[in-house]
Amino acid sequence: MAAPAPNTQQEMRRRNLARVLHAVADGGPRSRAAVAARIGLTRTAVSTLVDELLGAGLLVELGPGRSGAVGRPGTALALSDRGPCGIGAEIGVDHLAVCAVDLRGEVRARTAMDAANRDSDPGPVLEQLARLVGEVADEARGLGLRPAGLAVAVPGLVARGTTTVVQAPNLGWTDLDLAPHLARTGVLGSGSGTGTAVCSIDNEANLGALAELWLGGHTPPSGDFVHVSAEIGIGAAIVVDGELLRGTRGFAGELGHVPVRPEGRPCACGGIGCLEQYAGEEAVLRAAGLDPRATAAEHPGPGARIDLLATRAKEGDSAVLDALAEAGSALGTALTGAVNLLDPQTVVLGGALARLAPWLLPSLEHELGRRLAGPPPVSVSSLGADGPLLGAAHSVVRAVLDDPLAHRA
Amino acid sequence: MAAPAPNTQQEMRRRNLARVLHAVADGGPRSRAAVAARIGLTRTAVSTLVDELLGAGLLVELGPGRSGAVGRPGTALALSDRGPCGIGAEIGVDHLAVCAVDLRGEVRARTAMDAANRDSDPGPVLEQLARLVGEVADEARGLGLRPAGLAVAVPGLVARGTTTVVQAPNLGWTDLDLAPHLARTGVLGSGSGTGTAVCSIDNEANLGALAELWLGGHTPPSGDFVHVSAEIGIGAAIVVDGELLRGTRGFAGELGHVPVRPEGRPCACGGIGCLEQYAGEEAVLRAAGLDPRATAAEHPGPGARIDLLATRAKEGDSAVLDALAEAGSALGTALTGAVNLLDPQTVVLGGALARLAPWLLPSLEHELGRRLAGPPPVSVSSLGADGPLLGAAHSVVRAVLDDPLAHRA
Repeated sequence: MAAPAPNTQQEMRRRNLARVLHAVADGGPRSRAAVAARIGLTRTAVSTLVDELLGAGLLVELGPGRSGAVGRPGTALALSDRGPCGIGAEIGVDHLAVCAVDLRGEVRARTAMDAANRDSDPGPVLEQLARLVGEVADEARGLGLRPAGLAVAVPGLVARGTTTVVQAPNLGWTDLDLAPHLARTGVLGSGSGTGTAVCSIDNEANLGALAELWLGGHTPPSGDFVHVSAEIGIGAAIVVDGELLRGTRGFAGELGHVPVRPEGRPCACGGIGCLEQYAGEEAVLRAAGLDPRATAAEHPGPGARIDLLATRAKEGDSAVLDALAEAGSALGTALTGAVNLLDPQTVVLGGALARLAPWLLPSLEHELGRRLAGPPPVSVSSLGADGPLLGAAHSVVRAVLDDPLAHRA
Repeated sequence: MAAPAPNTQQEMRRRNLARVLHAVADGGPRSRAAVAARIGLTRTAVSTLVDELLGAGLLVELGPGRSGAVGRPGTALALSDRGPCGIGAEIGVDHLAVCAVDLRGEVRARTAMDAANRDSDPGPVLEQLARLVGEVADEARGLGLRPAGLAVAVPGLVARGTTTVVQAPNLGWTDLDLAPHLARTGVLGSGSGTGTAVCSIDNEANLGALAELWLGGHTPPSGDFVHVSAEIGIGAAIVVDGELLRGTRGFAGELGHVPVRPEGRPCACGGIGCLEQYAGEEAVLRAAGLDPRATAAEHPGPGARIDLLATRAKEGDSAVLDALAEAGSALGTALTGAVNLLDPQTVVLGGALARLAPWLLPSLEHELGRRLAGPPPVSVSSLGADGPLLGAAHSVVRAVLDDPLAHRA
């Protein structure tokens, strides 16, 4: 009646293939011997694993003349620039964007378009997105790449482990499973006949934080940070020991609805005095004396209102400066709560907040300083508005590196 | 130059020994065949592992006549009631307590005493604690148990991965390494000559949450919950996927210093309008018209002021009822922030908050309800004030179950 022993050899091999790939990914071209030394396996074992990865088209040999920093003779190994690639997509309130990233982490194809997705019918939006995905996937294939999966960033809550958008307030979408819409196009999925294609949907703030973790220059050594970003709303993501904290339902990181003026303005979420009512795009426009709807009509497109605020702040517009200072202060109060609860090593501002950081940071840091004995440093992401899109594409690439057997041609 | 292959056989054996022990720990007495079926190893492999654990005195055979619920003939295995035991200790503001818990999770020896540890000289307090630890360890040895380690719960911040209390405001201790004080007694440590003895120090709120996770009846299946407790201050701990979230420095879970009235009362921590100023013991006493110092002098000892508040609330004392309602409301505001950030499956009230729950819960739940679309359920721990002490002793027992080889005689 005893269950059969699990195939632990197979599991160990799978894990070791991933370790070899990560060793090459993290350190650039390396010899077999250097990989073996790094991951602590024998050179013989590594050679067998490398042969399998070469055969699967995930690694390539650069030839003895290009062994780079490797100190001893030996063929240098590198990640393939023709193997699997990750397709990332972003549904913004004002735009759609798609890109393809190869195993080396390089963006190889990319497209974007302005779009009026606020309070939209999801069908046409997703059809348009699927067309863009198809274009980018075709372009990638033309470069010898093989799309291994699609990840989509959305400005809303996604149920953990599913492809369902539970609520995307600015899009006006609720309880919508995106997978059938995107699969129906036949761009990816089993219909394409080339490898395993996965489709994942995630919150844009989560993917922006992962991009910062994987690509940004501000991730602390401990891998513990809070990433705060903004498009129309305020989004945040909590990274603990290098892993995203998702929460039971997948809704963690809702810094925008932490009460900062507990008996203040009612919020669209049903709450009272939420951060978003003091630091969200509409709140800042209103505090600066601008009508949010009229301003959006006059300045459509991704980042246009943020550009407007930045321009006016640079010009010294005191209403805008006061509005941004007030937003920074509200951010500081909400982050005080987050720091007390989470004890992160740093706070990173991304997206629109990175763009507006020069005018938000003084009041934000003042607030942290008057509320916390040892406030963590606040840094500004250099990824800007690209974070969620890059994070989406890289999440597919990471899935390939983590389990190469599942993604060979 | 390749590094030697790691001894993966050894690692796998160590892991499998732990799996066998946990299989017996989680399910009560079981046959070898039942253990094999549960953990997916062959019966032969399990028999070898079991023999080793029997030899090390961690498992015992109950004999064929006592195989209990096991359906087929076979000797039932159980955790030993004479093997290693965990010693847990607690330094409270008003008391000291020590207990010994065996591998089966049963408290086998226990002692406690009232103590005036507020603003104390740590030397004498730790000497007294060491004496109590010595008494309980001797009693455990008399029962055939072998103290495998000591874990101490303290009302303060402990630097992650160390035995140093960075700050315990109510004790008045700062930057104090407890290990030398406790090792000096010779009760535990290499001087005792019986097995590996470890000494760990942790925040009482962390250990209370772990006790709830391991022993309480309110841990949700996801293992995601926020545990809020109180002794003199408000403590909280965040459990994610069954693991404590510690934070970079080890200071996570400081719910007591989340701003709930951002421009409200100054707090001893240097912050403004912290939860502790509205829901901590002193704040509630003051709000109820009682002088905290005078009341503490009149009602010394662990839990005495909480008893007083509970008694008066039961009698319908409107000042006390109002004070507790206000505290519940402040707790609800702070927890709204925590729920937005962490998306826990439940909130559990422990310690003094469990005792006062009948009068805190209505306003607490009202606050969550008016601020959150889908507030998580709030439950009340049944461990009461024992949580941190039990969590401490059980943390040692868990360490033995997780790595049996390190703890054999």
